[in-house]
Amino acid sequence: MPFQSFNPPRRILMGPGPSDINPAVLNAMSRPVIGHLDPLFVRMMDEVKQLLQYAFQTENPFTIALSAPGSAGMEACFVNLVEPGDKVIVCINGVFGGRQLENVKRCGGIPICVEDEWGRAVNVEKVEQALKDNPDATVLSFVHAETSTGARSDAKAICALAKQYGCLSIVDAVTSLGGVELRVDEWGIDAIYSGSQKCLSCVPGLSPLSFSAAAVEKIKQRKTPVQSWFLDQSLVMQYWSGDGKRAYHHTAPVNSLYALHESLVHLHNEGLENSWARHQEQHQALASGLQALGIEFVVPEAERLPQLNTIYIPEGVDDAKVRSHLLNVYNLEIGAGLGAFAGKAWRIGLMGYAARNENVALCLAALKDALSS
Amino acid sequence: MPFQSFNPPRRILMGPGPSDINPAVLNAMSRPVIGHLDPLFVRMMDEVKQLLQYAFQTENPFTIALSAPGSAGMEACFVNLVEPGDKVIVCINGVFGGRQLENVKRCGGIPICVEDEWGRAVNVEKVEQALKDNPDATVLSFVHAETSTGARSDAKAICALAKQYGCLSIVDAVTSLGGVELRVDEWGIDAIYSGSQKCLSCVPGLSPLSFSAAAVEKIKQRKTPVQSWFLDQSLVMQYWSGDGKRAYHHTAPVNSLYALHESLVHLHNEGLENSWARHQEQHQALASGLQALGIEFVVPEAERLPQLNTIYIPEGVDDAKVRSHLLNVYNLEIGAGLGAFAGKAWRIGLMGYAARNENVALCLAALKDALSS
Repeated sequence: MPFQSFNPPRRILMGPGPSDINPAVLNAMSRPVIGHLDPLFVRMMDEVKQLLQYAFQTENPFTIALSAPGSAGMEACFVNLVEPGDKVIVCINGVFGGRQLENVKRCGGIPICVEDEWGRAVNVEKVEQALKDNPDATVLSFVHAETSTGARSDAKAICALAKQYGCLSIVDAVTSLGGVELRVDEWGIDAIYSGSQKCLSCVPGLSPLSFSAAAVEKIKQRKTPVQSWFLDQSLVMQYWSGDGKRAYHHTAPVNSLYALHESLVHLHNEGLENSWARHQEQHQALASGLQALGIEFVVPEAERLPQLNTIYIPEGVDDAKVRSHLLNVYNLEIGAGLGAFAGKAWRIGLMGYAARNENVALCLAALKDALSS
Repeated sequence: MPFQSFNPPRRILMGPGPSDINPAVLNAMSRPVIGHLDPLFVRMMDEVKQLLQYAFQTENPFTIALSAPGSAGMEACFVNLVEPGDKVIVCINGVFGGRQLENVKRCGGIPICVEDEWGRAVNVEKVEQALKDNPDATVLSFVHAETSTGARSDAKAICALAKQYGCLSIVDAVTSLGGVELRVDEWGIDAIYSGSQKCLSCVPGLSPLSFSAAAVEKIKQRKTPVQSWFLDQSLVMQYWSGDGKRAYHHTAPVNSLYALHESLVHLHNEGLENSWARHQEQHQALASGLQALGIEFVVPEAERLPQLNTIYIPEGVDDAKVRSHLLNVYNLEIGAGLGAFAGKAWRIGLMGYAARNENVALCLAALKDALSS
């Protein structure tokens, strides 16, 4: 049986991720591999840490890129901060809140669910009520930017409540990091995870992670060992320590880290606030165009994520046929609905390098054509 | 603070991994990102599966590349196949056997250790005795190619014993896959994990994995959920199923999978037996040269891995100084000793693309210079 090299076409990626990538980041991927304990590589990892601290707006010394996707970043937060029997308040307003719940259960935690309608933000009053009703809860988790619905929750208010009621906060920032305002230290976030393939416009496969001093202290005070060896952050901390005493843990994904470094250098050069503003501007242009096509948004305007636009599929329109048309005629990928929204909604991503004039113009033109074909 | 792109030098990688890489594999890394649910990507994943089946010499339908390093591949085997209270025989003859033990404990398994001297193969008689003494054991695990010592164990004999005594076998093939004879179906291996960055000469970050029908059945019959959501292979199986009903699990590391595909195409073109023979030939050339320099091997000849040569640091020689000389003067990386061998041994890798005439010649010349400097 003959096998040949795989030569993918150039797609325009406007789904829920992976997002369009800066060509400079792709170039970084193909730089020569060096050893993961090479002094030059260690120095680069230190820069990745500093650049992630900037992106997260934190001075947390424990700020790293986990060598696995965002789903593993999520699990790293739960397995390290939840011990069997711990009560955890979990906010669920989409697929990824549901996945947090699954994580709590698999760690042996006792979940208290705060549920909201899909497509809406987490209700802050309900969160406060759950905190009042459960004074013995130790952790509160929620999703800042729900990738399944496009809703943005008020991370600042929710984390302030968690602190007020003595809970550590775990925040899913997979789709928010780099795309909308996010201030880890100022908002008092204790544990946060993200993904490389969304608004950072890096290749998929890495999960930026940051833990506050209180979260690190909780890990140090655990009564039971972390159930995962690979995700045990007390071991990973030693691997990422910049003090020259780096302890071998696993072989880092060298080239993917080159790419993350490069994407973070670009974010730093653009400036974080400028990046947030660019996402908002491109979203407004896209939203105007969609409205002109008579298309409606799932999420109320005040709770919308600029980088992930979830829209109802117009009545009588064939979901799969339109997406195939976009892909086959225009090399344009938009996202299908996920979970409760499967077959009912599309998700148009404007993440990172994809949040550009040319992408918005193409998307509107191609969608207009597909809807009338 | 100014940040700039990271431009690594071209190193020659002859440590314990990552290994030298085929330039074609690096080129594959920088191909355009496409969506992880794109029909073209799904087709490529199917090819990766077929090529891994070839590399493992198996027809196991459950043969995948885990989206994380070999350490996570190890953990995936244990968390899926060991339930709390299960008795597991673990063979320990180096660092990675010790890590298997750690995994057994964190799954709530009851470990029975079979210990051998570092630098020696696992003793097959001791394994049989442990199986006789523990008729209630359900799993037996060992390391085929101990990356910390360079010893090769008799996987065929050990797996036959496991089967005879009714245990599932878990085999660490991180350093063996592609470099020495390995036949998953013929030898009756039940669960096997490897790494992308050793004899496959791909970038680090992925873990090839294969489960036999018996292993898959064990997962289906579990009484407790797998403690890790990310590593729960009953979910991952649905993601890798080629039947068009792919269920979303996480975002695959698209570009790293391009690289793995490319490296496996090269292995397929060379032929597996040819690759094993090439590793053996280059090892013999290296061993002759080292003997001429008066250097001694740690592992007895019959138990040596051709792709990982562990040698004693000659008396009076400064470990760090020699390795720095090799790196700074020749851009050549060899490995330090690990665990019990730290400061006492070096590890010279001849893995994948590094098992070449020019690498052996350079390594011998550079080492001769460094030892006399």
